Amino acid sequence: MKPVIILVNPKYGGNVGAISRCMMNFGVNELKIVGNNSIIDKEAEIRAVHSKKILNNAKFYGTLQEALEDIDFAVGTSGAVSGDKNIKRIPITPKELAEKHKTIDGRLGLVFGREDYGLYNDELELCDLFVSIPTSEDYPIMNLSHAVSIILYEIYNSSLEKSYNINTNKASKIEKTVLLNLFGEFVNKNDTIPEYRKELCKTIFKRLISRAFISGKEAHTLMGAFKHVKK
Amino acid sequence: MKPVIILVNPKYGGNVGAISRCMMNFGVNELKIVGNNSIIDKEAEIRAVHSKKILNNAKFYGTLQEALEDIDFAVGTSGAVSGDKNIKRIPITPKELAEKHKTIDGRLGLVFGREDYGLYNDELELCDLFVSIPTSEDYPIMNLSHAVSIILYEIYNSSLEKSYNINTNKASKIEKTVLLNLFGEFVNKNDTIPEYRKELCKTIFKRLISRAFISGKEAHTLMGAFKHVKK
Repeated sequence: MKPVIILVNPKYGGNVGAISRCMMNFGVNELKIVGNNSIIDKEAEIRAVHSKKILNNAKFYGTLQEALEDIDFAVGTSGAVSGDKNIKRIPITPKELAEKHKTIDGRLGLVFGREDYGLYNDELELCDLFVSIPTSEDYPIMNLSHAVSIILYEIYNSSLEKSYNINTNKASKIEKTVLLNLFGEFVNKNDTIPEYRKELCKTIFKRLISRAFISGKEAHTLMGAFKHVKK
Repeated sequence: MKPVIILVNPKYGGNVGAISRCMMNFGVNELKIVGNNSIIDKEAEIRAVHSKKILNNAKFYGTLQEALEDIDFAVGTSGAVSGDKNIKRIPITPKELAEKHKTIDGRLGLVFGREDYGLYNDELELCDLFVSIPTSEDYPIMNLSHAVSIILYEIYNSSLEKSYNINTNKASKIEKTVLLNLFGEFVNKNDTIPEYRKELCKTIFKRLISRAFISGKEAHTLMGAFKHVKK
């Protein structure tokens, strides 16, 4: 399935136009923008060249949460590679994303942040997975439209290769949510975990099941392990 | 060896600036331009952001032949994949180029043509090899700076080999074993899980942390969640 591009508060119409062009270069046509339609200015139209249809069909949202409503799997981009200090956001590479993309059922949203600040923490929290483009440490911050084009290029390339179908049904959004809620209750009622670590514990568990692309059967089995705390 | 970027008669300073920025993103710093230095305009400087040094050090040439004088291996880019009618220019993909790049001795020049006409035939004749980015047939013409960024991205990636991801320390075998043992005890002492499902539960947890490439810090955090069952 083709990914949906979601731009969070882009600042420059030129970037949005350039993104729309590279979307068309790679056969992707659905664009969502968190922000208002004044971003589609003259410069956006010039740089979109032959892809104005994508710009004209862009949809606008007040918040990222609203933009993600019909998205099953959200991938956030982070400008720089985070080390261990940023445990919540261990990114995968665009190549790894392209591989995983073949196995994702449902709608994939690729979320790109602001040109200057990227995505805020509460926005990153809404994403299931993070991708980061390997760059030189001397200057890791890429132009927004370049970042989009590299990620779409990788996904387009991998879709050209023979897609081998792994017949394991990925867990649905609901199955993942039920599992996460059960784990959350387990953690909350666990007195030996210091309060300040509880949220981190839940976040890590969420990241692990996302990175591992947990299947429906796996999710149901693990639900069984955490169900007893309800009693 | 790092490639040299050669732009043939670019028309827009903005593109040259964006190219200079993505060169710096991927640790490449030598820029040659066929044309004159009036192309480095205000827009070029704005879009170069922190890479102005590359722009300032760009060298200018009257013809491609002159620009190629100290280049050992020239790779030309073609906007669209040429069919049989153009048998002289059967292109390779950026991934194939990145592979070959490792084996090339001497100076590699990456030659990019004009935004509208690309490279002329006599310029293509000067190139040893051609590369073409796979794109949708509906709109194969990419923005010049996007094309440069994708090719540099591939070359940069292939030069990294396994060095990327080193800064997120994967959990050691011991850390994973401790976590798995704690989870195993948690499952064993959990009376609400039917006996026959306990082994499956442990196996699935093991698979998840393997597929997710759990980090050392993540493993330690989750250990905290399962420690209490020991008491």
